[in-house]
Amino acid sequence: MNRKVLVLNGPNLGRLGSREPDVYGATSYAGLVESCRSLGEELGFDVEVRETNDEGAIVRWLHEAADGRIPVVINPGAFTHYSYAMRDAAAQRTAPLIEVHISNPYAREEFRHTSVIASVATGTVAGFGIGSYRLALRALADEVAL
Amino acid sequence: MNRKVLVLNGPNLGRLGSREPDVYGATSYAGLVESCRSLGEELGFDVEVRETNDEGAIVRWLHEAADGRIPVVINPGAFTHYSYAMRDAAAQRTAPLIEVHISNPYAREEFRHTSVIASVATGTVAGFGIGSYRLALRALADEVAL
Amino acid sequence: MNRKVLVLNGPNLGRLGSREPDVYGATSYAGLVESCRSLGEELGFDVEVRETNDEGAIVRWLHEAADGRIPVVINPGAFTHYSYAMRDAAAQRTAPLIEVHISNPYAREEFRHTSVIASVATGTVAGFGIGSYRLALRALADEVAL
Amino acid sequence: MNRKVLVLNGPNLGRLGSREPDVYGATSYAGLVESCRSLGEELGFDVEVRETNDEGAIVRWLHEAADGRIPVVINPGAFTHYSYAMRDAAAQRTAPLIEVHISNPYAREEFRHTSVIASVATGTVAGFGIGSYRLALRALADEVAL
Amino acid sequence: MNRKVLVLNGPNLGRLGSREPDVYGATSYAGLVESCRSLGEELGFDVEVRETNDEGAIVRWLHEAADGRIPVVINPGAFTHYSYAMRDAAAQRTAPLIEVHISNPYAREEFRHTSVIASVATGTVAGFGIGSYRLALRALADEVAL
Amino acid sequence: MNRKVLVLNGPNLGRLGSREPDVYGATSYAGLVESCRSLGEELGFDVEVRETNDEGAIVRWLHEAADGRIPVVINPGAFTHYSYAMRDAAAQRTAPLIEVHISNPYAREEFRHTSVIASVATGTVAGFGIGSYRLALRALADEVAL
Amino acid sequence: MNRKVLVLNGPNLGRLGSREPDVYGATSYAGLVESCRSLGEELGFDVEVRETNDEGAIVRWLHEAADGRIPVVINPGAFTHYSYAMRDAAAQRTAPLIEVHISNPYAREEFRHTSVIASVATGTVAGFGIGSYRLALRALADEVAL
Amino acid sequence: MNRKVLVLNGPNLGRLGSREPDVYGATSYAGLVESCRSLGEELGFDVEVRETNDEGAIVRWLHEAADGRIPVVINPGAFTHYSYAMRDAAAQRTAPLIEVHISNPYAREEFRHTSVIASVATGTVAGFGIGSYRLALRALADEVAL
Amino acid sequence: MNRKVLVLNGPNLGRLGSREPDVYGATSYAGLVESCRSLGEELGFDVEVRETNDEGAIVRWLHEAADGRIPVVINPGAFTHYSYAMRDAAAQRTAPLIEVHISNPYAREEFRHTSVIASVATGTVAGFGIGSYRLALRALADEVAL
Amino acid sequence: MNRKVLVLNGPNLGRLGSREPDVYGATSYAGLVESCRSLGEELGFDVEVRETNDEGAIVRWLHEAADGRIPVVINPGAFTHYSYAMRDAAAQRTAPLIEVHISNPYAREEFRHTSVIASVATGTVAGFGIGSYRLALRALADEVAL
Amino acid sequence: MNRKVLVLNGPNLGRLGSREPDVYGATSYAGLVESCRSLGEELGFDVEVRETNDEGAIVRWLHEAADGRIPVVINPGAFTHYSYAMRDAAAQRTAPLIEVHISNPYAREEFRHTSVIASVATGTVAGFGIGSYRLALRALADEVAL
Amino acid sequence: MNRKVLVLNGPNLGRLGSREPDVYGATSYAGLVESCRSLGEELGFDVEVRETNDEGAIVRWLHEAADGRIPVVINPGAFTHYSYAMRDAAAQRTAPLIEVHISNPYAREEFRHTSVIASVATGTVAGFGIGSYRLALRALADEVAL
Repeated sequence: MNRKVLVLNGPNLGRLGSREPDVYGATSYAGLVESCRSLGEELGFDVEVRETNDEGAIVRWLHEAADGRIPVVINPGAFTHYSYAMRDAAAQRTAPLIEVHISNPYAREEFRHTSVIASVATGTVAGFGIGSYRLALRALADEVAL
Repeated sequence: MNRKVLVLNGPNLGRLGSREPDVYGATSYAGLVESCRSLGEELGFDVEVRETNDEGAIVRWLHEAADGRIPVVINPGAFTHYSYAMRDAAAQRTAPLIEVHISNPYAREEFRHTSVIASVATGTVAGFGIGSYRLALRALADEVAL
Repeated sequence: MNRKVLVLNGPNLGRLGSREPDVYGATSYAGLVESCRSLGEELGFDVEVRETNDEGAIVRWLHEAADGRIPVVINPGAFTHYSYAMRDAAAQRTAPLIEVHISNPYAREEFRHTSVIASVATGTVAGFGIGSYRLALRALADEVAL
Repeated sequence: MNRKVLVLNGPNLGRLGSREPDVYGATSYAGLVESCRSLGEELGFDVEVRETNDEGAIVRWLHEAADGRIPVVINPGAFTHYSYAMRDAAAQRTAPLIEVHISNPYAREEFRHTSVIASVATGTVAGFGIGSYRLALRALADEVAL
Repeated sequence: MNRKVLVLNGPNLGRLGSREPDVYGATSYAGLVESCRSLGEELGFDVEVRETNDEGAIVRWLHEAADGRIPVVINPGAFTHYSYAMRDAAAQRTAPLIEVHISNPYAREEFRHTSVIASVATGTVAGFGIGSYRLALRALADEVAL
Repeated sequence: MNRKVLVLNGPNLGRLGSREPDVYGATSYAGLVESCRSLGEELGFDVEVRETNDEGAIVRWLHEAADGRIPVVINPGAFTHYSYAMRDAAAQRTAPLIEVHISNPYAREEFRHTSVIASVATGTVAGFGIGSYRLALRALADEVAL
Repeated sequence: MNRKVLVLNGPNLGRLGSREPDVYGATSYAGLVESCRSLGEELGFDVEVRETNDEGAIVRWLHEAADGRIPVVINPGAFTHYSYAMRDAAAQRTAPLIEVHISNPYAREEFRHTSVIASVATGTVAGFGIGSYRLALRALADEVAL
Repeated sequence: MNRKVLVLNGPNLGRLGSREPDVYGATSYAGLVESCRSLGEELGFDVEVRETNDEGAIVRWLHEAADGRIPVVINPGAFTHYSYAMRDAAAQRTAPLIEVHISNPYAREEFRHTSVIASVATGTVAGFGIGSYRLALRALADEVAL
Repeated sequence: MNRKVLVLNGPNLGRLGSREPDVYGATSYAGLVESCRSLGEELGFDVEVRETNDEGAIVRWLHEAADGRIPVVINPGAFTHYSYAMRDAAAQRTAPLIEVHISNPYAREEFRHTSVIASVATGTVAGFGIGSYRLALRALADEVAL
Repeated sequence: MNRKVLVLNGPNLGRLGSREPDVYGATSYAGLVESCRSLGEELGFDVEVRETNDEGAIVRWLHEAADGRIPVVINPGAFTHYSYAMRDAAAQRTAPLIEVHISNPYAREEFRHTSVIASVATGTVAGFGIGSYRLALRALADEVAL
Repeated sequence: MNRKVLVLNGPNLGRLGSREPDVYGATSYAGLVESCRSLGEELGFDVEVRETNDEGAIVRWLHEAADGRIPVVINPGAFTHYSYAMRDAAAQRTAPLIEVHISNPYAREEFRHTSVIASVATGTVAGFGIGSYRLALRALADEVAL
Repeated sequence: MNRKVLVLNGPNLGRLGSREPDVYGATSYAGLVESCRSLGEELGFDVEVRETNDEGAIVRWLHEAADGRIPVVINPGAFTHYSYAMRDAAAQRTAPLIEVHISNPYAREEFRHTSVIASVATGTVAGFGIGSYRLALRALADEVAL
């Protein structure tokens, strides 16, 4: 059986495809899910993609991952900038946790805050569109293979 | 049939009338709902007033409005100062969205942060008690009539 | 006889119509004056619209309003960000005073300073073009009718 | 019948015992609940301990306490640093409300923000492990006994 | 003939007596003028008291004083905090120049800026109501008598 | 023989009872001493209460406590905000050291600095009037009993 | 007929020659006017030099230049650091506008604020004494000749 | 019998006369004492001048003044910028307390902190050399005479 | 023929393997070169790895890449935090440019400055050890294949 | 023989013409060199134009100029914002040294740092495209002619 | 007779040897005194080592040194960061004064403030353990021998 | 054979003697080299003195020292304030590395940045002219002798 991987998406990301195409690219959320799943299969992962607008749900999913030693790929969306609750949950991780962003939040003028989750993540991949998720899965593959 | 308008209220606003009357006036939440509905009728709107303490609910209602091209009057309450999730959802709006406040948050010493939603709103009305909601509905009437 | 209302405009606002139409809309200053006056008539006000580039004039007009208990709608223009002299004069008001802005200064990156007048104003209306003035006059009508 | 006391816990606190034992001590969440209940009994309180990862739940519980004039002991967890929604709800309190922390947040480098709830709390107890809860209950006993 | 002294007042100070008596005391502007003149006579000065709301007027009066080697007592009012134009003019002084304030601006929370004129003044007297002017005139008498 | 405990008070605290009763309550310093001593007896401590206005005395008393492995309850008063000398002395502690405050310094607008001693204290109790001292002694009793 | 050029001077600059010769050089204001006019003639310009201590006057002159498409050389003096009113007026320019300074304000410790006008000027020339004006006129000659 | 007045001097002020004459003038500390005493006699005061380098002594003297309702003239020297202990003691004053400085601390670049005592003083006199003390005594005479 | 890719390393990176193994892992620079080359071959790239301690060399290599439309993987090392010269050169890129870091600079306390190059890079990969380079090459493969 | 003048260019400036034409204009570096040389000839100068990407080279050229008393026109490019090495070398100048910029760095949002070289330069010319160099050469001609 | 040198130590330094040996080394205070004395003898100095926890004592000792033209080696301990009283006393020095630190305060994260005494010291030696004192004495020997 | 010691000098230091004698003293660079060498001989060191204006050279020399376990005395000149490349190279040291400065950079107003190298150096000696180098060599002698 393949090893499970959780791909978690924060607020508004389920709307992908109906929103600012010049910033986020033309891929829909369904396409994102499909892309993650098929690459996962190729890499020997059982990828489950979830999305929510609730901070509490993100926290619970991170607990679930910590309990099951499940690797996580997470795009926190807007939670990136203020959810210390998510950060504390992420800090409990027992397996690799990779922060991804479709565009590069460090390059976006409007946010003064840097990511609150970066300091507890295994690594960060940002700026490659949904390619960010794919690179993260590959990174997990390398690390898991050890 | 009248055009629908959503009036959305953030955390603690459902408590209106049981809280700090010198700051928020004596009107109860029920009075606020009634006042919005009757003015809406007068202006030819089908006004639906909602309130929640959950950030995720606000986000979902803004998605609903974006999908249905429904104008929004929103009093984010305390979310004004930190909910970037709400802001990103509001940025997807497909119809006018007006930010209202019962008192003037820009004049309240204790908040260092300005409104995170102001930059994506059509306009802001603040400081008129529940009259802020009424002015917002009038503003929608003017804009919608175009 | 109708109750008098002063609509005061700070530096450069008399130039409306000859300047950055994408930011300020196509309405000329003459149109602004006319629009305020006719809505005033409709609402039972004798609206007098003035504009100046001199800080001292704004101060004197605010004194005049304070002495006559005249409601004020004021667009301070660039004075918004540094004229403490105007603020001290506004603090003496004996009738409602509403701060208006054509665009939303709280959303404009370039100004670090928030409004120095907001803390002494009855309320703020921003972001509706010259509709901001109209909403302010309506707000006065509601408050004055009491 | 004993007077009711609510002991409220914010995000991740239900995980106590499975997390960073060098920081939070070896006590599990179940031990915390038991310790609060038995000390409550001894002091003549009917202690109910709750935990949640949802900001909205904290807000609703604080409303419940305000309506029932129920004293509150609250460990806001990560909400300490940004939940103005929680703060506004706490400000409505009609009975003592004591902020507790297992470790001392004022001594933790990583947080720049001080507690947003401290200014509306009756008092603060921090740094004594789950002993912080016990001291808070004793403080309530003294104050309630008056 | 007595030596001339200019007592200059910045914006809003001509309103003294009609404004916030708890902050500025009950003395009117006319009383201030009379008090300065009569003490001046006693000390052997020909005191001329002026007030203006115009930054340019303050600048010109300081030029006049510099040309005539006339000592100056100046209450800059709100200009204290931002008028670098006034400061540059004051820096040209050829006789003592004393900054006075009715209340103590250094103790007023709301102003972040310290006085822009303090570094070029002979000295500062603040917090004694119109007694500040009287102490300044005495200080001139001591210095002039040399 | 009972175990010794030092209760140390910083500048101005010996004046308790003659000063701002709305902030500090009506208890006099003598009452504070008596209350600490009698609770100490009950808990099996030999409590010695001291107060000083001299930074050097606080430092020496902390050395004495470090040498004798004596637990300390300390209310640093104004030293809270700037005495790094006191902090360095406290860092040498060989027994529990609890910081107490009568009111909550973290809620007092006027102080920008947080406590310089918090990071080296066992814990903090603040906001319960002289009850803060009593809770601290109880905390010592629990810890010492181990 | 020669093309008109306005050379505008802000507060205190009319005093040139009677003030801090080590900073501003020994040239008088009359010499500055003469030097600009004669170089203007040589370059084919009809140069008009003005100076004022009033912010409103600067604003009106910039409007006049904008209406007449007249090139401007402007030394804002102390207005450099705070007059957003002047900046908004300058932003309306319809012809080249060059900011000049006698000494280099960017090298003067005491000013924290950079120039508020630089971002809307064609270019800046600073540090050459009244030679700064002459270089600006030459720059206009090159640009105008196109 | 004359009313007592305390003139208190902070650290290093006893060295007056042996130190930086270009900043502090040529008067010695003995001259300062004599000058205060003789003017006090003239005004009907029994002036006692004290100096110390110990923060605790300043605090105790302010307690003595508060207990005896004795007016105070205080030059805090370097304590101006950080002694919150002195400030808390000064806040207990029961008679006028005037802060004086020989030179103007608000004009000295090197200190970022403004005076911590200004907000609890009756008034401030700064920049007149030892004349600052004389003006403060006159101010007391006026206020005491009421 | 395979497409060329430049892998550029800033100061000290040639020392990899002889330095802080707990931070940078045990891989030597030779291993890094080999790993990049072999993966490149696999991906169809002709990878050339270079390293330098000279800012000017980095600038020239970025010019070479811009002229040849060569994709770049760059680990700027310490230049990350201050080399605006490198940033300007990178901004001229005509092909993808990916910033890599062995550890995560955004999580390293000691640097206040964020990356000066992030805003002009295609994307950033950080925190995967030399795996960061490998992920970057894969990212190029995806992008180049388009 | 004509007097020598060095025109020095910092990193990336040799790329002029192949880079962001909307910011830097269409002129190539070769055109810049030619323009400086021919104007130099006209003014009686032997102009030598150099460019480098190496900080050390700039430093050495400034030493050469200092030793030969050669006037310098310098465009530091990105070094403007951080090269204190260049600044120290420039401070040794024995002849006029003029800082030039093609666009106006003081108006570019992205740079927080002002020029590190401005305080040791004779003057600054910015914002005139390569016309900035030409104005600088004219300024030298005026000054050298003395 | 040998020339006298004062070695002054601020708060907590008398505790050397009983405190954090990993930071301060294993040398006791007695060892420090002995080491300074014997090296002093070798260098021809009569070294007197003192330590105090009282700010006022440091001030008085610096006065004594200033009066006797005695060279000073001073380790201000925690006073380094806030004692402006000590700084003003040190500024009166009439002989070399060298600031020493056992560890390097400029490298210690926790202190935001730099040394308040550095700007008035002859030089600084930091980071060599008690070797810092020895280097300072050698520096005095070189300087004194002149 | 004597142990080798590298004395490294950053930009502009080779110019010693031709530059600002009031700041750097009258000693030439040749004198500095000679002084280091002869003291080295006396102490049993083979001292090699180098200087460069190139950041890369400093980095390479520090690598050479790290490889050969050679003690280093380094005066980084202007690199002190921004060269993180040099700092990273210094962090690799395998023998004592002492930072020296001719004057005290911590006391120079103009630099906001503290030394970037201090945190990785064995110690710092500053403010003794070229005596700083001599003290550093002595410190090495003491440490090496162990």
